[in-house]
Amino acid sequence: MTHKIWIPEALEGIEKVEAFINQDISSPEEIIELDYPQVGQRRLEEFIEAKNKEEYSAMVSLLSYPMNRENLKKISHLKAISNYAVGYNNIDLDAARELGIPVGYTPDVLNEATADTALTLLLMCCRKVPYVTREVKEGNWQSFELKKYNGIDPRDLRIGIIGMGRIGETFARKCYKLWGNKIFTLKRKSLENREFDFPIQIVEEEEFFKEVNLVSLHCPLTDQTHKMFNRAYIEKFKHPLVFINTARGAIHEEEDLLWALREGKIISLGLDVTDPEPMDKDHQLLKDDRAIIFPHIGSATKRTRSEMSTMALRNLAEVLRGRTMPHEA
Amino acid sequence: MTHKIWIPEALEGIEKVEAFINQDISSPEEIIELDYPQVGQRRLEEFIEAKNKEEYSAMVSLLSYPMNRENLKKISHLKAISNYAVGYNNIDLDAARELGIPVGYTPDVLNEATADTALTLLLMCCRKVPYVTREVKEGNWQSFELKKYNGIDPRDLRIGIIGMGRIGETFARKCYKLWGNKIFTLKRKSLENREFDFPIQIVEEEEFFKEVNLVSLHCPLTDQTHKMFNRAYIEKFKHPLVFINTARGAIHEEEDLLWALREGKIISLGLDVTDPEPMDKDHQLLKDDRAIIFPHIGSATKRTRSEMSTMALRNLAEVLRGRTMPHEA
Repeated sequence: MTHKIWIPEALEGIEKVEAFINQDISSPEEIIELDYPQVGQRRLEEFIEAKNKEEYSAMVSLLSYPMNRENLKKISHLKAISNYAVGYNNIDLDAARELGIPVGYTPDVLNEATADTALTLLLMCCRKVPYVTREVKEGNWQSFELKKYNGIDPRDLRIGIIGMGRIGETFARKCYKLWGNKIFTLKRKSLENREFDFPIQIVEEEEFFKEVNLVSLHCPLTDQTHKMFNRAYIEKFKHPLVFINTARGAIHEEEDLLWALREGKIISLGLDVTDPEPMDKDHQLLKDDRAIIFPHIGSATKRTRSEMSTMALRNLAEVLRGRTMPHEA
Repeated sequence: MTHKIWIPEALEGIEKVEAFINQDISSPEEIIELDYPQVGQRRLEEFIEAKNKEEYSAMVSLLSYPMNRENLKKISHLKAISNYAVGYNNIDLDAARELGIPVGYTPDVLNEATADTALTLLLMCCRKVPYVTREVKEGNWQSFELKKYNGIDPRDLRIGIIGMGRIGETFARKCYKLWGNKIFTLKRKSLENREFDFPIQIVEEEEFFKEVNLVSLHCPLTDQTHKMFNRAYIEKFKHPLVFINTARGAIHEEEDLLWALREGKIISLGLDVTDPEPMDKDHQLLKDDRAIIFPHIGSATKRTRSEMSTMALRNLAEVLRGRTMPHEA
């Protein structure tokens, strides 16, 4: 039997996955066929509206695909869906469950790359990279500057992690190893039995707001975290902040970030995620040297994306062969 | 007795130095007076041509000051000079010795900040930051990109350090702690009895050229290293390189870096130092997304520059009080 999988794009490393996906000798009769365009990225509508969509038994979905109840109903014949991401806020899980479609995701493999993205933003914020590189390009670099370009030393950061999951932990550990920073996170039930291999202060909100001068978001986007990092929240912090978001754009309120920069509540910020995505090219943040905006490249290294390809397709292949999905949301 | 020190600029943290420099109760009669402009940076000529230069007994010099024999002769009344840097390639040490002027410098305190600068460049090169941030600004960021923005995973770097001194070692250690990279350096007499707290391959040139895919320069600028990293040298490497220079611009040959980018011998490069400095604003490297140019900010954090201020002035104060210079070049 042949199972066809609909894939939005020629994913990183897909040739390698193609080469080994049918070498599963335990079900030699279950042939998996990967269907993807040679160039470009397909939109969700192209699948939903395809006349031959019934030929496909599974699909890889993207964060940019609104997998709501309405859309899921139109592809309810699928035996499995796997999101090409560690988050799955774009998918209505309740609806998928009701329709009997297991939903996969790709955790862990992107911890390193996403933490590195946060680290890149941290260093660029501290060392005022947008400003100093512009100085060079505009011919304003005059001599060996003793003060003008001086930035924050990362050793002086007291790091507040919001969302001490796998990625938050990886980022915190990297900072601690590099600079020995004090690491803070908020008291949560889920942390009660967690052990860390670096020193960490698990504190009440009051202490968190009083101590930290860098906040890095690593929590999932949920009803609780939606627009959480807004003016009212920022006002609680005692020190001017460096702010990093590599989680989801909708966790912060962009208008309030502009306000915080104006008021000096935020010294500099680095966003790998925006709300909406893509960010409008005329957005005020793109004109401010204190803001660094990446186009959601958290997991975007060849190695990590290749591992995500393997994991996303393995999620689907296992279900199609009648086995349990290895990473189900 | 009052000793006046000529200082090019209101250095980072100079108020703190002023507050404690005369609290040395072992020589209460030796008053030190710090002379610096409230704004801007003074040129060396302003000192050399000053009518009252004989009033000063010591000076802080900068990398951008050509402290050659001719200039040193004109200020030979000085009892001490201290360079505001870890390097002192701008000073003719032989001439200073003949004139009996001890020369100070500021080692060690800038290891961390300079290694962090190299790390920032490494991450920005790997993750294609100039390209992806331009995509956002120009409105080319369209959707969640699965492949277009994928960069190099730092875990895939085999790191070649040229100049395994204090800064090179600090940078290598940071990389190893972050990503467990294989670290290579060239066999040198000076390394024979050195011990490292991370694994390192000390190899012959042949192996070095064969193995590494990132080169980071941390050697001093000398007759031997002048223009060393040129076309002939780059051609010896077997793998396309990421190239980082946080040492001195004159160690590389900029025309040859352009050639290497064209030929694909260098994938991306990050320079904190150029030749000459400042780099011309119309330089071709400034138009290339694969090149990142910083305006010599290696040690430019408030904390580090403040520690350099203390160290440079302490070098001078000790000599003026008849004691040995703590950090003499």
